[in-house]
Amino acid sequence: MHLPSPLSRRRLQLGAVLPSFAACAAVAVVVAGLAAPSLHADEGMWTFNNFPADQLQKSHGFKPDQAWLDKVRLGSARLAQGCSASFVSKDGLVMTNHHCAHTCIAQLSTKKNDYVKSGFYAASRAKEMPCPALEVNQLESITDVTAQVNAATKGKSGAAYTDAMKAVTATIAKKCSTSDAVRCDVVTLYKGGRYDLYQYRRYQDVRLVFAPELGIAFFGGDPDNFNFPRYDLDAAFVRVYEDGKPLVAKHVLPFAKTPAKAGDLTFVTGHPGHTSREYTIAELAFERDYGQPQRLYRYAEWRGQLTEFRRRGPEQSRIAGKDLFSIENGLKARLGREAALADEDFFATKVKEQNDLIAAIKDPALKRDTVKAISDIAAAMKTQRALWMAYVQLEAGWGPYSDSFRQARALVRAADELPKANELRLTEYTDAKLPALRQSVLSKAPIYKDLEELKLIFGLTKLRETLTPSDPITKLVLGKKSPEELTKELLKTRLDQPKERARLWAAIEKGDRSGIDKSKDPMILFARRIDGDARALRTRYENEVESVVDAASETIAKARFAVYGTTRAPDATFTLRLSFGTLKGWKERGVDVDPITTVGGAFEHHTGQDPFALPNSWLKAKNKVDATTPMNFVTTNDIIGGNSGSPVVNRAGEVIGLIFDGNIHSLGGEYGFNPENNRAVAVHTSVILEALRKIYGAGALADELTTP
Amino acid sequence: MHLPSPLSRRRLQLGAVLPSFAACAAVAVVVAGLAAPSLHADEGMWTFNNFPADQLQKSHGFKPDQAWLDKVRLGSARLAQGCSASFVSKDGLVMTNHHCAHTCIAQLSTKKNDYVKSGFYAASRAKEMPCPALEVNQLESITDVTAQVNAATKGKSGAAYTDAMKAVTATIAKKCSTSDAVRCDVVTLYKGGRYDLYQYRRYQDVRLVFAPELGIAFFGGDPDNFNFPRYDLDAAFVRVYEDGKPLVAKHVLPFAKTPAKAGDLTFVTGHPGHTSREYTIAELAFERDYGQPQRLYRYAEWRGQLTEFRRRGPEQSRIAGKDLFSIENGLKARLGREAALADEDFFATKVKEQNDLIAAIKDPALKRDTVKAISDIAAAMKTQRALWMAYVQLEAGWGPYSDSFRQARALVRAADELPKANELRLTEYTDAKLPALRQSVLSKAPIYKDLEELKLIFGLTKLRETLTPSDPITKLVLGKKSPEELTKELLKTRLDQPKERARLWAAIEKGDRSGIDKSKDPMILFARRIDGDARALRTRYENEVESVVDAASETIAKARFAVYGTTRAPDATFTLRLSFGTLKGWKERGVDVDPITTVGGAFEHHTGQDPFALPNSWLKAKNKVDATTPMNFVTTNDIIGGNSGSPVVNRAGEVIGLIFDGNIHSLGGEYGFNPENNRAVAVHTSVILEALRKIYGAGALADELTTP
Repeated sequence: MHLPSPLSRRRLQLGAVLPSFAACAAVAVVVAGLAAPSLHADEGMWTFNNFPADQLQKSHGFKPDQAWLDKVRLGSARLAQGCSASFVSKDGLVMTNHHCAHTCIAQLSTKKNDYVKSGFYAASRAKEMPCPALEVNQLESITDVTAQVNAATKGKSGAAYTDAMKAVTATIAKKCSTSDAVRCDVVTLYKGGRYDLYQYRRYQDVRLVFAPELGIAFFGGDPDNFNFPRYDLDAAFVRVYEDGKPLVAKHVLPFAKTPAKAGDLTFVTGHPGHTSREYTIAELAFERDYGQPQRLYRYAEWRGQLTEFRRRGPEQSRIAGKDLFSIENGLKARLGREAALADEDFFATKVKEQNDLIAAIKDPALKRDTVKAISDIAAAMKTQRALWMAYVQLEAGWGPYSDSFRQARALVRAADELPKANELRLTEYTDAKLPALRQSVLSKAPIYKDLEELKLIFGLTKLRETLTPSDPITKLVLGKKSPEELTKELLKTRLDQPKERARLWAAIEKGDRSGIDKSKDPMILFARRIDGDARALRTRYENEVESVVDAASETIAKARFAVYGTTRAPDATFTLRLSFGTLKGWKERGVDVDPITTVGGAFEHHTGQDPFALPNSWLKAKNKVDATTPMNFVTTNDIIGGNSGSPVVNRAGEVIGLIFDGNIHSLGGEYGFNPENNRAVAVHTSVILEALRKIYGAGALADELTTP
Repeated sequence: MHLPSPLSRRRLQLGAVLPSFAACAAVAVVVAGLAAPSLHADEGMWTFNNFPADQLQKSHGFKPDQAWLDKVRLGSARLAQGCSASFVSKDGLVMTNHHCAHTCIAQLSTKKNDYVKSGFYAASRAKEMPCPALEVNQLESITDVTAQVNAATKGKSGAAYTDAMKAVTATIAKKCSTSDAVRCDVVTLYKGGRYDLYQYRRYQDVRLVFAPELGIAFFGGDPDNFNFPRYDLDAAFVRVYEDGKPLVAKHVLPFAKTPAKAGDLTFVTGHPGHTSREYTIAELAFERDYGQPQRLYRYAEWRGQLTEFRRRGPEQSRIAGKDLFSIENGLKARLGREAALADEDFFATKVKEQNDLIAAIKDPALKRDTVKAISDIAAAMKTQRALWMAYVQLEAGWGPYSDSFRQARALVRAADELPKANELRLTEYTDAKLPALRQSVLSKAPIYKDLEELKLIFGLTKLRETLTPSDPITKLVLGKKSPEELTKELLKTRLDQPKERARLWAAIEKGDRSGIDKSKDPMILFARRIDGDARALRTRYENEVESVVDAASETIAKARFAVYGTTRAPDATFTLRLSFGTLKGWKERGVDVDPITTVGGAFEHHTGQDPFALPNSWLKAKNKVDATTPMNFVTTNDIIGGNSGSPVVNRAGEVIGLIFDGNIHSLGGEYGFNPENNRAVAVHTSVILEALRKIYGAGALADELTTP
C-alpha cells in the first residue's frame, strides 16, 4: 500500500536512525522526462498554478478552466501526518484511507472495543470521536515569491546565502501566517528554479465518523499489497469541526452520480511525497547494482526472522506485528523499484533523458558545468560504493540495530551537541529538530527485550558478515565477543525505561552531562565507545559523497530549468499536485488485467483465513449486496506514496474513487513514469455507497455523500 | 567454502528437485576469453594434454616438460563424490579437505566418539578406519578419440545422431574399461569440438587416517566462508589400500622443503566442476537482473526463518543445522556471482568478448548462423523471464517445498513414467537414472514434521506472493486454503515413513500402480492434482527455452572452436585440470590484503564463541606452536567448486598448499576470470606439519609427509 509519505520513507529505511542518511538517499534535483510536450502523455504530478491544460486538451480533449482548478484544489485536503484527503460534504465530512486514519482508530480503541478489528460508525454527530493526532490542511492559495527570494539571496554564497535564504523564507511565511489557523510554507520547486508560498487553512478538531474493519480495508494483506486485482475497502471518513460545530464547507467534491467506467478521464488531486526522477545515471546504477540489492537482502532475511519469531507465541506475535508489517511493505516497495531499475528498456529511457538534456543546453559554460557535474556525481558514487556498507552499519544504525541503541546514541550525542552553537551541531540536534528528538527520547512506547535481542543479534551478525570478521569496524564493535554475547551484555541497559531516559535527558537539557559521563549503563558505554569512529565515517560520507552530489545536482538542476523551464512538473514535495490519466488496465506477463473488480470478486477470494477473511458483516450481507458493484479500479495517473487518500475525480470535478495503492510497477515511479504498466489503484465510490447502505447500516452517511 | 562440485550445485539450488532445471541453468557451450595469448595471463583451467607451456614460459619464465606434467597428473586424485585430492606418500597417503572427508568422518562417529567434533587420528595403520563412501580415482591416461566419435556420427542428426553418439562412446569406454579397477569416461570438451577418453585407476578401499576438529577445519564458519584473511586447517588424510595393504604409490607429490612465500609461481591440479563462461550476454543479463536476485531474495528470507527456527530448542537446532549450512553457503556463493555480474567493468569485458567472437568468424555462413543463434537466445531469455517464476514454483519444487512433496511427486510420476518406453520418459525416470531415484525414494534419512511444516508454509506463502494471489497457479495450488491450512492437511501424509514409500515403490517397479491410484494420502493426492499443470509448464519451458538455448549454444560453440580452437581452456567438466598463478594478495575496498596469514592470527581471532572458538587442543598447545607459522594463503589460480582438496604445487612439483576455498570474488569465476581480485584460498603446508607435530601428537604422520 502507499504509506503516508514521511512515514513511508522512515519505514522503508530499516534501522536508519539518521535524517542525514535519508537526505542522502533523496538528493533532490529536478524532474526528468523529454521535450515538452512530455514524452509520456500522462506523466506529471503538476502544481495547480502550472497545470498543462492545453496539453490535456490535445491528449484527452478536455481543458479545465481556472474555476475547475480552484474547485478541485479547495476540495482537496492534506493530512499533515503524511496523507491526502478530500472534503466530500458541506458539513465538513472528509474522506481518506483507512490506513491513513489507522493511528486514530487504534488510539480510540480499548480492550473492550477494538475498532481496528470491528470497525467504527458514529450513527449521530454526538458519537463522532475526536482524533487528536489528525490535522487537516486545505490549500487556500499559492503565490509566486521567486523574485523576493532571489532578491534576498542575490550575489550571496556559502553561509551568507544560507542565512539570507532562511531569513527571507521565514519573513515571507511569518507575514502570511496571521493566526494559528493559517499555515504557510515557502516551497522550493525545480530545486530553486521557483519558490512558491503555499497558504493553508489548518483544522485541528477532527473526529472519526466511519471506518470499516481492517479485514476488508486491507483484504489480501501483504500478498495483495501493491497488486491488482484487488478487493479493498480502504476508506475512512472523518469530520472537521470548527468552534465545536461541524465545519460549513464551502468547497466540496461531491460523489459522482455516474460511476467510473473503463476509458474515463481521471484526475488525482493529492500530495505525492517524494520522487527521484532527476537522478543521474551513475546514481541510478548505484541503486540498481548495490544500494537496493543490499537493502533487499537484509530486509528479506530480517522478514524471515520476524515471521518465525512471531510463532514463538501470542505475545511475540503481537509485539513484532508492526515491525513485520513495515518490513513487508518496505520490502515490496523496494522490490518494485529495483524491478524498474533492472528493466533495460526503462533504464535506456533514463540514459536517453540525460543525453538529451546535455544536447539541449545552449549556453556553452552551463553545458560544460553540467557535464562536469554528471562526472563528479559518477566519481562520488564510486566513493559511496566503498563507504556505504560501513556507513550504514556503524553510523546509520544497521549494526547495533535496536531501539535501545538508538536511544543511547541520542542521549550520548545530545550531551556532546547541545552545548555547541546551533550551526555547529549535527543536523538532528539543531534547535529546529530538538522538539522531535525530545519527543522520541521521552516516548513511552514500550521497548520489548526479546524483540530487542532478536534485532541486536541480527544487526551485529550482519555487520560482521557484510564487513567481514577481519574488518577494523567489526573488531571495534564486537571486540572478542560474539554477537550473542555482546547482545546479552548490552541488554543489561536500563534505557528501555522511559523514566531513566527522561532523567538523563532533563539533565542534558540543563547543561549537565555528568549522567552520561559517569554512566555505567552498557548501552551508553557502547554508544560512546563507537562514537568517534562513527562520526569520522559520517564526516567522510558527508564530505566525499553527499556534498559532492548536492553541489553537482544544483548545477544539473540549473541546466534542466534553463532547458525546460516549467514545461515539466517538478519532483514531488508533499505539496498539492494534480495528475491526469485514464481508467485502464495493463498487460501483466502477457495477460490483460481488467481495470475494474467487483464485490463478487471479494466473495470469491474469501478463504476464511487471514488475510483473505472477509469480516462477518460482509458474510452476513452477502445476499443483500449487489455482486456486480464495482469495487476497485486502476488508472494511468502518475502518483506515489503520500497520494494515499487522494480523491479520483472526473471531468465534472466529482469524486469517482479513492486512491489507496499503486500496482507493483508504480513503485518504479520513484525514478520515472512508465505509462505501459504504472497504475494507480483506487476504491470505487460505488462500493463505498453500497457497503455503507447494505453492510454497515450507515445509510445516513451514504445520504450525506450523495446529497447535493 | 568450495563444496564438492556435484553436491554444491545441488545445494545451491534450494528446493530444486529436478535435474532438468539444473541442466537448464547450466547450458554448456565453450570457454570465453579473447585472442590467444589469453587476455588474462593466469586465466584457464587447462587440460593436461593441452597445457600452454610456452605461454607460461613467457609470462612466468617456467616451462614444464612432459615428465613434469605426467608426474603432477599422476600425483593428483579425484574423489568420485565431488572433490579433488593428491597422493602425498609412497604408502598411499592421500590428502584432501576436511569438508571433503566430512561424510566419512560423520559416518564413523558414534554417540560416544564424535570425530567431527573431536577430530580423529589413527596412530597406527591398524587403527585407520574404512570410509565406504569414498572412492579415489587417478587419471592414468588421456586419449584423443575425436576422429572416432566424429566418424560414427558423421551425417547424422536428431535421434540417429543421439543413438550413434551413445553407441560410439559406450563402445570406446567399454573397450577401455578392462576391469572393475579401471574407470573410463569419454569427455566432451569445447562442447563437442573435442572428445577425449579419460582412463582412471579406481581405488575403493579408502581409510581415514587423520582429521582435525571441525572447530579448526571450519574456523570462522559462515562469517569467514569465502573470505580472507582466514585461519582454517581444512585438511584431512586418508590412505588408499590395495589387497588389504597400503597402496605402494609410484607417483607422489611430496611436501616441499621450502615453504611457499609471496610471489611464488603456483600450480593447482584438480577437478573444477562447472563454469558458465560461454554464456551469451542475454543469458548473463537474465541471471544478473532476474534469476540470481530472485534466488537471493528467497534464500535470504529462508535463512532468516531457519536461523530463528533453530532457536525453538536444541532439537530444532539439530535438525535444521544442515539446511542452514547449505543455505548460507549457497547464499554467499550466489552473492559473489551476482556481485561479479553487477560489476559494470566485468560485464563490459563479457560484451566485448561476444563482439570480438563475431568479428573474428571468417566463414560468412557460420557468422550469420552465430549472430542468429545469439539473437535466438536473447528471445528465449524473454520467454524464460515470463515463465521462470511459475516454473520454479510449480515444477521445480519451490512452492510445495518439502521432502514429503518431493517423495510424493517421485512416486506419482514413477507410476506414470516407468510403464513407458525408456526414451519416452521424463529424464529423471530413465533407466540410467533409476538407481539414484530408487535410492532417494528408499532413503532412511529422517523427515522431521516440524521442519517440513516450516518449509511448506514458507514455500506456499512465497508461491502466492511471487505469482500473486489471483494467478491461476496460486488458485490451483491453494484453492481456498491458506498456506497454513494446506500445510496442515498435507502433513497428514505418511510418506515421511520409509516403509510406506518402500511399499508403494516396490509395487510400482512391479508394474502395479494401484497403490498410487487408490491412495488417500493427502500429499499423493496433492501431487496428482497439480501434476498436469506442472508437466504442461515443464513442456513449455523445455520447448520454448531450453531447447532453443541448447541448439543455439551448439552453433556458438562451433564458432568459438573455429576461431580459437584449443588456444583457450574448455569450460570446467569435473575432469583433471591444471591452472597456474602467483601467491599474491589483492586490494579490497582500496586496502591491500596480505596474501599469507599466520597461526598467531588464529589465536588473535579466537573469541571462545562459535564459530571463532579454537579447539582445546589448540588452546593447550598455544605456547608450544610457533605463532609465525604460515597458516593460509591466497593465489591468483583460476579455480572453482570441485577444486576443493586440490594440492597447490611449486615449480618443482612439490606440494606447498591445499586448496579449500576461494575469496568472494572467485565466485564470479563462474562467468569469467578477473585477475584483479579472483583469489584461490589454501592451507599452507607449514601449518599442517606444525599442527601434526605440536598439537595432535601425530609426528609419525608428519614424518611420513616429509620422508622422501
